[in-house]
Amino acid sequence: MDLDFAKTGGLIPAVVQDHKSGRVLMVGFMNDAAFAKTVEGGSVVFYSRSRNKLWMKGESSGHRLIVKSIQTDCDKDCVLVQVEALGPGVCHEGYESCFFRTLEGGEWKVTEKQTYDPKSVYGGKA
Amino acid sequence: MDLDFAKTGGLIPAVVQDHKSGRVLMVGFMNDAAFAKTVEGGSVVFYSRSRNKLWMKGESSGHRLIVKSIQTDCDKDCVLVQVEALGPGVCHEGYESCFFRTLEGGEWKVTEKQTYDPKSVYGGKA
Repeated sequence: MDLDFAKTGGLIPAVVQDHKSGRVLMVGFMNDAAFAKTVEGGSVVFYSRSRNKLWMKGESSGHRLIVKSIQTDCDKDCVLVQVEALGPGVCHEGYESCFFRTLEGGEWKVTEKQTYDPKSVYGGKA
Repeated sequence: MDLDFAKTGGLIPAVVQDHKSGRVLMVGFMNDAAFAKTVEGGSVVFYSRSRNKLWMKGESSGHRLIVKSIQTDCDKDCVLVQVEALGPGVCHEGYESCFFRTLEGGEWKVTEKQTYDPKSVYGGKA
């Protein structure tokens, strides 16, 4: 499972895609340990750059990402994780996907509806 | 078009997805200038970390990525670009997608067939 973590300072992008719909849900970063835990445990674990620690997506919300398959790219410096996303949405702002803004006329517009109330899950901390 | 380039040292991941099939084709990085050129020109421009310069995907191969729409995520530190990919494949190794290897039994296996001969396009430089 030789991935090239060195090229990017120890962290590689991990693209999370819904294994059925093909929707890209979020992008996080993984270090070697996060990737190993993801493979071993079967739920996506990222490395949080803001908190400087491993972070299992859904550890507080319950919105875990269940791994279905993992691909890597030609340079082995990125992974694509096909998942089943538990819960109504992966985004802490209440959307199915973190990519809920689309560029329209030079501005980012919110182009979809929330799938849940983030206050009910994250207690307003968002 | 305020993206957060500062958080990651000036570069953000850009996920390229086929606008029809939903297939994730590749992931590159963009700086502010690469993103601006992508928006203005309508073809995907990355920042090459190995060559330290802007790089229009397809400038040598002709396999350009025609922008259909662009999304950003909740933190505005990543973009998802929906494209029409010109040519038989985006990967310089001859595949439709750079993500042609899947993790199987702890090893990366090539899990799809080449869609073209890279030597015919890149002259064996791969």
